[in-house]
Amino acid sequence: MQENTIIAVASGIGGAISTLRLSGDKSIKIAEQFFSSKNSTPLSLRKPFSLHFGNIIDRKGEIIDEVLLSMFKAPASYTGEDMIEISCHASSYITGRIIEEALALGARTADPGEFTLRAYSNGKLDLVQAEGVADLISTTNATTHRLAMNQMRGGYSQEFTELRKKLVHFMSMIELELDFGEEDVEFADRTKLKELLFIIKNKIDSLTASFKNGNALKNGVPVAIVGKPNVGKSTLLNALLNEEKAIVSDIAGTTRDIIEDTKTIGGVTFRFIDTAGIRNSDDTLEAIGIERTFDRLHKAHVILLIVDNIENINTQITELQLTNDQELIIIINKCDLHEDLDTSSLSHSCFNISAKNHVGIDKLEAHLSEMYGNAQNEVIITNARHWELLSLSLEGINRAIEGLDNGIPTDFIAQDLRESLHHLGSLTGEITSDTILHSIFSSFCIGK
Amino acid sequence: MQENTIIAVASGIGGAISTLRLSGDKSIKIAEQFFSSKNSTPLSLRKPFSLHFGNIIDRKGEIIDEVLLSMFKAPASYTGEDMIEISCHASSYITGRIIEEALALGARTADPGEFTLRAYSNGKLDLVQAEGVADLISTTNATTHRLAMNQMRGGYSQEFTELRKKLVHFMSMIELELDFGEEDVEFADRTKLKELLFIIKNKIDSLTASFKNGNALKNGVPVAIVGKPNVGKSTLLNALLNEEKAIVSDIAGTTRDIIEDTKTIGGVTFRFIDTAGIRNSDDTLEAIGIERTFDRLHKAHVILLIVDNIENINTQITELQLTNDQELIIIINKCDLHEDLDTSSLSHSCFNISAKNHVGIDKLEAHLSEMYGNAQNEVIITNARHWELLSLSLEGINRAIEGLDNGIPTDFIAQDLRESLHHLGSLTGEITSDTILHSIFSSFCIGK
Repeated sequence: MQENTIIAVASGIGGAISTLRLSGDKSIKIAEQFFSSKNSTPLSLRKPFSLHFGNIIDRKGEIIDEVLLSMFKAPASYTGEDMIEISCHASSYITGRIIEEALALGARTADPGEFTLRAYSNGKLDLVQAEGVADLISTTNATTHRLAMNQMRGGYSQEFTELRKKLVHFMSMIELELDFGEEDVEFADRTKLKELLFIIKNKIDSLTASFKNGNALKNGVPVAIVGKPNVGKSTLLNALLNEEKAIVSDIAGTTRDIIEDTKTIGGVTFRFIDTAGIRNSDDTLEAIGIERTFDRLHKAHVILLIVDNIENINTQITELQLTNDQELIIIINKCDLHEDLDTSSLSHSCFNISAKNHVGIDKLEAHLSEMYGNAQNEVIITNARHWELLSLSLEGINRAIEGLDNGIPTDFIAQDLRESLHHLGSLTGEITSDTILHSIFSSFCIGK
Repeated sequence: MQENTIIAVASGIGGAISTLRLSGDKSIKIAEQFFSSKNSTPLSLRKPFSLHFGNIIDRKGEIIDEVLLSMFKAPASYTGEDMIEISCHASSYITGRIIEEALALGARTADPGEFTLRAYSNGKLDLVQAEGVADLISTTNATTHRLAMNQMRGGYSQEFTELRKKLVHFMSMIELELDFGEEDVEFADRTKLKELLFIIKNKIDSLTASFKNGNALKNGVPVAIVGKPNVGKSTLLNALLNEEKAIVSDIAGTTRDIIEDTKTIGGVTFRFIDTAGIRNSDDTLEAIGIERTFDRLHKAHVILLIVDNIENINTQITELQLTNDQELIIIINKCDLHEDLDTSSLSHSCFNISAKNHVGIDKLEAHLSEMYGNAQNEVIITNARHWELLSLSLEGINRAIEGLDNGIPTDFIAQDLRESLHHLGSLTGEITSDTILHSIFSSFCIGK
């Protein structure tokens, strides 16, 4: 795969300028054949990392376009190979003609993600960083942007590469001990090994714990709006989204389907979910809706329990059967119809609002944004592959620590460490298979 | 308008890489403030026409993206001003953040076509060339590509700039004569003036004559398929387009609406138009269809008269009432049902085909492509504005030639020449108004 020179359009559809990328051994040679400029020095003899203005000429000598060409020589390029970037007029006819010429001169079209795959293969990025590139392109808000940027620039993967290196060193000592077989030698300092294992364990612990948040931040933090019928759940959803998303009426049980949409507040994307009001209903459709309400409720990170008075509020909270890691916020609606209620007896955050008149919505939003705003500065994992590999690696580390404590024979400990090392290696791509690489890079867009 | 530094995304939507353009006095200064690289030399002190790798940093010091930055210094840039091009990861969040920073540092967002407008204002392109840039981007086939490329690279507009210069010289001589008033002096050599006027006249004549073709080539050469009911017009349309575009049945009068679609053959785009069969019909809807058939027939450049035998063919041709510049081709359909008919008595191109079985379609297509293939090598105008200005200019030239022949007083001739010069000047943009500029450039995309 590495022997070919590849070409693809790297820019999007439409616009005024398109960018083509050409990477591989032959890329400069191909460019020399179809690029013509006033400067008669062949491209290969010009300085690398340079910009050139000229024409792309087809085999018949006809001008395809006036272009700007950037030339990079290995290893100082995105892929680590010789590379050419061509900036031409944004017409798919023109980019098509340029690709056609490049193919005739010995290039082939690139697979999705193949430029980044090459960057990884040539050691320009590790696997976690490469995944960060894809995340960066699909970034839609400040938080996912910061997480992806951190990941692409090395973030925690470089730390794990270091820790893994140290563990590999211990591992080789232990393998040596095993080679000596019967002789009772100990090359690996057990105390220092345990110290290292604890450092790795703590790192992994905090990262895997961050995944729940990370995943939510990537896809939108799920916020369920629940409450009795007719307390104003749909009105609150509409007020938060600033549009008439859900149908609002005076009839209890108006909302049956789950209605949801995302909104970015202070750089964090929230997924607000309007649900059917909770009551005993004889209406079959409504009953199904209420069942679904509980289902979504259990998956939500934040629950907005909306009420119009504070009587029986604790019974309602108990009925929700929330888990410890779910955040409950009490919303007292219709504040325009009554005095602000005394909520000092409640142990949860409370907001007096009028969903209908958009009163108090800004304070609620500020609170939500604060809850997740700090996440922007933490190291957080957002990728399920990383979570899985870190969790698997942790199992081996935990068993090894236990083994060391209980004086388990060295060969069992060695086996645990080998497994851990394997999973850590898979994370950064030091150990990997073509199948995994394919599944990672095929989700990229072409030209990246 | 020229005092501002402008920014816009110049690439399309999606993809892996986006390109931003920054142009104007402050562009390098702005880039220096938000771009940071390992090289500590300020951008303004680095060599122009150069490439730089680094980060875009926001005012809080946070990295927005890793980018490639190209720097151009006036006048060696597209706009003729100082320019910066930034190649970043293709996320609208990222491009939005970069634009936000540039605005905070004193740029403003660019209007559609504003980069090219500046190129024109700074003398990098004349108006005809600038229009060629827009045409080039919307190019979809070899012919429009060649015409737009020729136009953008100067083509006929540079020739007119030269001719106009010569005419201006004569004009100033004539104005001088008029200044001397009563004295009977003749500074402008009338013979040479007439020679020049004829050269200009011939140029304009051939260009304005090319407009009909040019316009057709740009929008697709209109080819009407006409004939009696049930001879296979819709089947021919489907065969040409290679899809089931029109409903085909044995019932005479199946097609009522005009059905059309384009197809590019040999680099030329044709617009094939299926029409209602021509007959006297009592059906109101069909009668309206037949009326429309004649309407489209008169606007077509090529008419495919389809028949299933050659009896009465000359009567049918007469009924079509074609003009001299319309090209008629006789299509004898259903050749699978009879021997090839003797068409030697007909003075038009004839093709024996079977639309149903796709027999003979390739020969018909080759013929159409040949008819317009040569157009690719001619100088052709495709822009209605150019046609109008050239035609107006020609009127003045013709009157001046006539005046010279008839010994009309110099001040009348001067007036004709002034008008001609004005229209020629408007063509290339040497004389122009803001209104015209606005209407030309507002049709561009943003970032061009």
